[in-house]
Amino acid sequence: MQLYPGIEVGPGGELLVGGLKALDLARTFGTPLYVYVEDAIRWKAREYLKELRRISVPADVAYASKAYLSLRMARVAGEEGLWLDVASAGEFFLATKAGFPPERILFHGNNKSPEELKMAIKNGVGRIVADSLAEIKRIQEIASALGRTQAVLIRVAPGIDPHTHKALATGRIDSKFGIPVYRGAHIEAVRLALKMKNVRFMGFHCHVGSQIFERRWFELAGKTMGAIYEDCLKAAGVFPEECDMGGGLGVAYVPEDKELSIGEYCEALVGSFRDRLSNLGLPMPRIFIEPGRSIVAQAGITLYKVGTIKRLPSGQKLLAVDGGMADNPRPMLYSAKYRCLLARQAREGQLSYRVVGKNCEEGDTLIEEAFLPMVRTGDILAVMVTGAYHYSMSSNYNALPRPGVVHVYEGRAFPVVRRQTYRDLLDEQIEGTDRLALASNMGQF
Amino acid sequence: MQLYPGIEVGPGGELLVGGLKALDLARTFGTPLYVYVEDAIRWKAREYLKELRRISVPADVAYASKAYLSLRMARVAGEEGLWLDVASAGEFFLATKAGFPPERILFHGNNKSPEELKMAIKNGVGRIVADSLAEIKRIQEIASALGRTQAVLIRVAPGIDPHTHKALATGRIDSKFGIPVYRGAHIEAVRLALKMKNVRFMGFHCHVGSQIFERRWFELAGKTMGAIYEDCLKAAGVFPEECDMGGGLGVAYVPEDKELSIGEYCEALVGSFRDRLSNLGLPMPRIFIEPGRSIVAQAGITLYKVGTIKRLPSGQKLLAVDGGMADNPRPMLYSAKYRCLLARQAREGQLSYRVVGKNCEEGDTLIEEAFLPMVRTGDILAVMVTGAYHYSMSSNYNALPRPGVVHVYEGRAFPVVRRQTYRDLLDEQIEGTDRLALASNMGQF
Repeated sequence: MQLYPGIEVGPGGELLVGGLKALDLARTFGTPLYVYVEDAIRWKAREYLKELRRISVPADVAYASKAYLSLRMARVAGEEGLWLDVASAGEFFLATKAGFPPERILFHGNNKSPEELKMAIKNGVGRIVADSLAEIKRIQEIASALGRTQAVLIRVAPGIDPHTHKALATGRIDSKFGIPVYRGAHIEAVRLALKMKNVRFMGFHCHVGSQIFERRWFELAGKTMGAIYEDCLKAAGVFPEECDMGGGLGVAYVPEDKELSIGEYCEALVGSFRDRLSNLGLPMPRIFIEPGRSIVAQAGITLYKVGTIKRLPSGQKLLAVDGGMADNPRPMLYSAKYRCLLARQAREGQLSYRVVGKNCEEGDTLIEEAFLPMVRTGDILAVMVTGAYHYSMSSNYNALPRPGVVHVYEGRAFPVVRRQTYRDLLDEQIEGTDRLALASNMGQF
Repeated sequence: MQLYPGIEVGPGGELLVGGLKALDLARTFGTPLYVYVEDAIRWKAREYLKELRRISVPADVAYASKAYLSLRMARVAGEEGLWLDVASAGEFFLATKAGFPPERILFHGNNKSPEELKMAIKNGVGRIVADSLAEIKRIQEIASALGRTQAVLIRVAPGIDPHTHKALATGRIDSKFGIPVYRGAHIEAVRLALKMKNVRFMGFHCHVGSQIFERRWFELAGKTMGAIYEDCLKAAGVFPEECDMGGGLGVAYVPEDKELSIGEYCEALVGSFRDRLSNLGLPMPRIFIEPGRSIVAQAGITLYKVGTIKRLPSGQKLLAVDGGMADNPRPMLYSAKYRCLLARQAREGQLSYRVVGKNCEEGDTLIEEAFLPMVRTGDILAVMVTGAYHYSMSSNYNALPRPGVVHVYEGRAFPVVRRQTYRDLLDEQIEGTDRLALASNMGQF
């Protein structure tokens, strides 16, 4: 029985990940462990490309690397013909170290430092998504000093609130991202960009939010962007070549979540934009979309070993695993819900368990209530849909070393990020008081 | 004007940290930067010791290292005569690497692995705070195999809910920590411990929660512990030598928070326990308390450089700094409130600013509304009271390198944790697919 692409229950009831037994992966690589079915990541990437072709628009898919980035993941994105959306010089650094072509990188961020901009422009970044008028001027200065012309998209906040988690609603008029579409500020930005000799204005960018389950917010975004492109032609006299429509497709973490398909998402977002422009008699720009979570989330699971099991006075059993909020802060950050399964018997059971981590904090509860068969100390527990914003958000809280990351691809498992050791915790610790910390990181580029 | 011990506004209106200009620290060590006034940490430690002496009970103060641990911090705790409360093998490893005497370490955790227990016992840990009956048996097995006798405290969940943030309420009957005081389970644990040849039962441990502002919860905890000690004598025939009463003293993050003094806290928690026992005609055990946050929180600030400043349609200004949720996840985790000041002019102003970080997420707002003088790009902003659960909870989200940590002590500033570089982000990345990740970390001990 397939649970997610590449993740299934085997004939003996055991959990299989990319065809391999989760139990064997835990035994070989230790726990806690992030495991990805790389085949599933690649399949999702292809689904996006296929669905965009189906609606017949020239389009590229830029993987939002903040969801999960490793050298290997950057290579996978590269091999599948994706672009990459990076949100910092660190992500740019990792991607280019993996050999990802910089000309296929989009550089995001509400507060890029001058050093970051310089590094990106110097290294030939494909697009910079400018977040403010001041940034457009800064790009001009830096590009001019470097003798380059930089392709730029202008991020707008279209004033759409897609009723997702507050922390994920990036399209509101008071967002920290982009230029609010208000009193013509976005047109002013275009006029400014057109005046800048070393800036090549390519189009607008908008991302209304993340983890969205309702088609209507994407349709609203698409139609609103149509109006913005019409504005731009009328008010600034230029019709942009490109349009970056962001990501946001909601992912089901638990069976109750009802997600849109990739096809429905593309049709709602890009199709509504195309239709609006077509009604206005305008051509279709080249499209970027930026999925992150929806490409990697369901391709990843976390394997834990069960330690302490306690019976609470309420009758519920408490089951503690060897990871927790340090490797998965999402229950605490977003009240995120998860589903878990025993690796040896991957089915729902009759017993009610509260699944907690080993971090020294009451809030470190991964799942409030999971129904499982009888669990024993030493069992391997798999928490499902942990491929996005887990490894990338992990910390060393309580001095817990970070788990390793393993990919399974074409039936073979291999580590792509090694597990931290206790010695790694000493890496930045200064023994004496005579060594000086460096004030800047930029010397490395 | 003093803002916090060691943190003040200088004659020219500038922010002084341990007597040094915050602006100079930012210039010398770069931003974002965690800065501690080490003198203030030491002063708080001495306050605790002094107040415990004042109420005339034999007592030790165990610093809860999860709040902030570095090699230097472990040395400071050691020099001030504190014990150390660690919550994992990683914290134990760091502490002992700093030369902290293992016999003054208390080992906590709701799910210590057998490997962690073995490591702690083998290395002569002072106390293990046992969290379940199963763990008492496990300690016996391991101590016996190593030919040791291990001093053990038994953690109880006394059924007290101190109305703090849900994530910080550890005393409830359904807590993931400890043995619920219900149907005599705690007495059963004592009987078990007394039967174990290699376990030396020292007493109970309880910690009702963190960030508590009301005296009554501490009094309730103290009195309840009195009853538990009476129970133990009556039902198990033994009166424990020691009692660990946990921490929990609330810290004011913003001026509206009204915190108890260290003296009021000690009197409420330890004094009420002493009085209850005295009424029962029982002697006073040796006390441990475990402050973490209240020792380091107000001694720390974070210095950021201001980047993008935008005017929102609401009229509020948005001010973006060069750090964010990766170095301070507390606003998102606990809706924590903060106060910030300009380093050059450390006073409240007339202008309303929303202070956001540079992480690629709308929720990355550090302060919803701060009133400041006019802020310019390039200004240094200090967020106050960031000494606890900031560095220890920091992540590399968006591949942002972690800030460095600087201590100021006796008028001198020195780095104690170096700033991460982009190259550090590659440390665990595996280039090819042929290297094997280690399944276990324990080989290092």
